[in-house]
Amino acid sequence: MSTINKQIHLVSRPDGEALADNFKLVDATVGEPQDGQVLVRNHFLSLDPYMRGRMNDAKSYAKPQPLGEVMQGGTAGVVVASKHPGYKPGDTVVGFGGWQQFTMVDAATPGTMRKVDTAHIPLSAYLGAVGMPGVTAWYGLMKICQPKAGQTIVVSAASGAVGSVVGQLAKTRGCRAVGIAGGADKCAYVTGELGFDACVDYKAHRDPKSLYQALKEATPDGVDGCFENVGGAVLDVTLSRMNAFGRIALCGMISGYDGQPIPLAQPQLLLQSRLTLEGFIVSEHMEVWPEALKELGTLVATGKLKYRETVAQGIESAPEAFLGLLKGKNFGKQLVKLV
Amino acid sequence: MSTINKQIHLVSRPDGEALADNFKLVDATVGEPQDGQVLVRNHFLSLDPYMRGRMNDAKSYAKPQPLGEVMQGGTAGVVVASKHPGYKPGDTVVGFGGWQQFTMVDAATPGTMRKVDTAHIPLSAYLGAVGMPGVTAWYGLMKICQPKAGQTIVVSAASGAVGSVVGQLAKTRGCRAVGIAGGADKCAYVTGELGFDACVDYKAHRDPKSLYQALKEATPDGVDGCFENVGGAVLDVTLSRMNAFGRIALCGMISGYDGQPIPLAQPQLLLQSRLTLEGFIVSEHMEVWPEALKELGTLVATGKLKYRETVAQGIESAPEAFLGLLKGKNFGKQLVKLV
Repeated sequence: MSTINKQIHLVSRPDGEALADNFKLVDATVGEPQDGQVLVRNHFLSLDPYMRGRMNDAKSYAKPQPLGEVMQGGTAGVVVASKHPGYKPGDTVVGFGGWQQFTMVDAATPGTMRKVDTAHIPLSAYLGAVGMPGVTAWYGLMKICQPKAGQTIVVSAASGAVGSVVGQLAKTRGCRAVGIAGGADKCAYVTGELGFDACVDYKAHRDPKSLYQALKEATPDGVDGCFENVGGAVLDVTLSRMNAFGRIALCGMISGYDGQPIPLAQPQLLLQSRLTLEGFIVSEHMEVWPEALKELGTLVATGKLKYRETVAQGIESAPEAFLGLLKGKNFGKQLVKLV
Repeated sequence: MSTINKQIHLVSRPDGEALADNFKLVDATVGEPQDGQVLVRNHFLSLDPYMRGRMNDAKSYAKPQPLGEVMQGGTAGVVVASKHPGYKPGDTVVGFGGWQQFTMVDAATPGTMRKVDTAHIPLSAYLGAVGMPGVTAWYGLMKICQPKAGQTIVVSAASGAVGSVVGQLAKTRGCRAVGIAGGADKCAYVTGELGFDACVDYKAHRDPKSLYQALKEATPDGVDGCFENVGGAVLDVTLSRMNAFGRIALCGMISGYDGQPIPLAQPQLLLQSRLTLEGFIVSEHMEVWPEALKELGTLVATGKLKYRETVAQGIESAPEAFLGLLKGKNFGKQLVKLV
């Protein structure tokens, strides 16, 4: 028996902005699992900004996404058939199944998949607050920013899957949490629902001086920790507000993902304020995942860590949803629901 | 009895480039020490790039140099009169006596002055390789770059008081030491006398691509540690050569000290290569001074750490010598000899 398996392939690389034409919908099939294999039906695809970097054929931290193959990415789903003793049909799992309806997983390979408990945590949350984005927030904040009670933490893309966790975690450590987000609705959510102390709408402050003034008002005691997802003008103004010995977790620079120049205007501030900056990728810090997931899972299960999802429907919608994510059209974690 | 004491005061702040007019020679006098005081005749003034930042009235790590007062700075000299039991005439001392011939020191204040042994180490070296510049090199290299045998360390302003120590220390740790300096004579000195493995003459590569190509040839295995004194194009190309998990000690950015914009062209490299960058000031890390000075003193006394000095003669020459230092006219440590 073989099952139709719709997939999205990357068929060309962007020249500047990523476009729908870079992707192609392909009808494939999946058969029965062989010994050691598990067939998973993907219920959710995770769409994440880092994928944009992998669409380029450039030297970067991740290998480029190969052309003519299924777009790689995180997935959450349910086992439909198994020839591995550790898994049985009905098990809920999280893995790296890619942009397709079904994934045949070699379950014996360590790290390819793990079972998750959906009694207290929704399956989709394992792609967000209790998954890679949540651990990214946890690592950058706890290990790089090293927040102390009373300090001010600023996070850009504050309503997103990573940023929303950064600010809420900072609040649990007794910090002032200040977000930067695009649009009044996102900012209202960040302060109203997520409990940040303030949020600056960068779309309302297109010139750097105005943006600086708005951030200054939101950070009367300066900034001790910066969790950066955006880069460009947003990072420039945050640097200008940083206190001596401030710490910067450099997680993403989405403002430059299409190849735009995003120079740092005043790198001398790194010296003058004796700042520490660290670029990181969470998959290179697997040692923190158990501790981070334990805290994040408990916070979500007890309703203390809130998150929001934007859910596109059907595998066909993945490319447009991803392109929207790159433009900030999503609100919270961007998912594609397949089932 | 009072003694004539020629001093250099800062009388105005630079608007852009620092100029001789910003300084003024003043004839003052010094009297006899009171209880607890020590009168020191300064034999050498230390001229250092950080002084340029203090000439501005801007928010920076150091308080601005006050107008109408003696330029502050490190000095090495000899006690001529003492009313403190710890010092007697003839003692050789290092302190922060400023641009003047004599300094009356309140010797009871901790950290104002220390006695030094000139049996095996020349007095002037305590202002260079065995003083603040040497400890700066030691701290940034050992504590921030954290060199490991086989790694490549790049240091800019490589023939200077700090850079020359960075590269030689890196060699003692089994690293490949690569300098960046301005001019063929400085580069020849860096490789020939100081023992660096390579040195790139930035003046011979005015366009960034050419400079990048030259650094690439000098760093065939990439760069693991960067000790930055210059900023601007020099930092840009070094960033482009950095290996994953590379470390950057940000010590100075002399290319921007007159207020020129010195944007960092590609800050995304900090993320892509997962770099750690730390801005630092050595005076905020007093805990390392004993260990650093012990190693540096031993290396100088045994001839294993070489250095070069440019010595201007007489207090009147201090302003011009300092302005020359800012333009790279000095070769090695810039001093003013007063006696």
